[in-house]
Amino acid sequence: MSYWFKDRYSPHTVLDIKIKKTLFKGASAYQNIEILESHDFGRMLVLDEIVNVTEKDEFIYHEMMVHVPLFTHPNPKTVLVIGGGDGGIVRELSKHPQIKRIDLVEIDSMVVEKCKRFLPRLSVGFKDSRLKVYYDDGSQFLKNKENFYDIIIVDSPDPIGAGRSLFQKQFYYYCLGALKKDGLLTAQSETPTFKKEFKIMKSMHKKLNGIFPIVKFFTAYVPSYAPGIWCFVFCSKKYDPLLDFQNKRYERLALKNSYYNADIHRASLALPNFLRDEFSNH
Amino acid sequence: MSYWFKDRYSPHTVLDIKIKKTLFKGASAYQNIEILESHDFGRMLVLDEIVNVTEKDEFIYHEMMVHVPLFTHPNPKTVLVIGGGDGGIVRELSKHPQIKRIDLVEIDSMVVEKCKRFLPRLSVGFKDSRLKVYYDDGSQFLKNKENFYDIIIVDSPDPIGAGRSLFQKQFYYYCLGALKKDGLLTAQSETPTFKKEFKIMKSMHKKLNGIFPIVKFFTAYVPSYAPGIWCFVFCSKKYDPLLDFQNKRYERLALKNSYYNADIHRASLALPNFLRDEFSNH
Repeated sequence: MSYWFKDRYSPHTVLDIKIKKTLFKGASAYQNIEILESHDFGRMLVLDEIVNVTEKDEFIYHEMMVHVPLFTHPNPKTVLVIGGGDGGIVRELSKHPQIKRIDLVEIDSMVVEKCKRFLPRLSVGFKDSRLKVYYDDGSQFLKNKENFYDIIIVDSPDPIGAGRSLFQKQFYYYCLGALKKDGLLTAQSETPTFKKEFKIMKSMHKKLNGIFPIVKFFTAYVPSYAPGIWCFVFCSKKYDPLLDFQNKRYERLALKNSYYNADIHRASLALPNFLRDEFSNH
Repeated sequence: MSYWFKDRYSPHTVLDIKIKKTLFKGASAYQNIEILESHDFGRMLVLDEIVNVTEKDEFIYHEMMVHVPLFTHPNPKTVLVIGGGDGGIVRELSKHPQIKRIDLVEIDSMVVEKCKRFLPRLSVGFKDSRLKVYYDDGSQFLKNKENFYDIIIVDSPDPIGAGRSLFQKQFYYYCLGALKKDGLLTAQSETPTFKKEFKIMKSMHKKLNGIFPIVKFFTAYVPSYAPGIWCFVFCSKKYDPLLDFQNKRYERLALKNSYYNADIHRASLALPNFLRDEFSNH
């Protein structure tokens, strides 16, 4: 039955998205899960009434989350994905032949199961033979890992419900420990457009800034997430996303991307004054 | 009285903005004009039920429309603004001391009058002593100008109603004629996020591509205009916005901007693959 889904950006701004059909609606042990078919955004995964991913623009988010760190690290062999149950992050990782091992830790097996059924363009990622999937809490999983990963990608929902622990200082320390001495990490970091999300962004920056030597925001346009800038945080022990950009490997691989390219890599790190003045990209 | 204003992006996607108060509502000879006070976007100018400008994010649009061309031209002395009745474009032009003359052609005097009253942060631009305001149709005004302006800035609404003529091929030819032999032009050029606007963008590109030697899109985040990328078109007879970027003048002027800086200038010209493949930025 057709209806309007309401994506509540704030108490005073709401995006109405016309839905053609509900493909799945249910609750796991962790959250409410819906898969909706919309007119403008294609199929959408909705977790606890927040848009998690849409077929229309997921490529922007996933390409930026993956290729910015992968083309910064000179030799990425082991990659950990926290969250990412839709498969989109792994699909992009699959484009990098030098990776030897991909671990994915998703707390909610129902997300994986439903995405495999209803979002095949994303869940195609699960076919990668280098992938091992663990159903566990990200923090719990990381506790026992030391000096193991080249790259960690934190594909978290907003810091409510199932995703809350992935925004805590303890979690970032676990990441630091699990990364090799030249390891790096990316995470989605909300938007400055609305007050609540900007507060989260500032809080993430404050925590990470005290832990990693290099902390920078990079940005992209993700229409279904928020009007305005969508931000990602890049944290690194050694490599800088501009100075260490692996241009030659980028050119050699000649990826079939829809968003990310070498110019976009560099451009995504340019911050407008109102962000540059708030956060020093050091 | 408080209510929800509906910004209809498409038949299937609508942004609801909570309004505290209607400050003005009336009709000119050309369009319906409203000035609304919102919670999240401050005061908004609404023309024919489309958001034209908001206090929250107008700085992004105006800084990009002005400083990208102004810091590309090596010696901008005469500037023409088509539209721009809110004063925001002129406010940004005022930051450039080398300009000798600013002409502004706005069809609708009621827009200027109401913005002067209700949007003082924008209409402060009208105080610039180099400014002459003409109430006329942009095309009519340009007919009689030849080899006169260094820069033309087309601050048009969407191509419906009062703004329609500013998207026609004849208008672009008038601009070409009114510009000096090394002149250049910028115009807002909609968004690729929704089909209708992307069609306008493609049509603009096709027309301009046959007229100007250099035609490039540049982008910015303007939350109240559309989710995703907002695009601007840069058309030039000689100067290239990357190769001819006037970095020294930019540094000397040390503008008090909230969005535009030298990194943003360069970054705004990097297009994601889905746009780069559609339009060659030549």
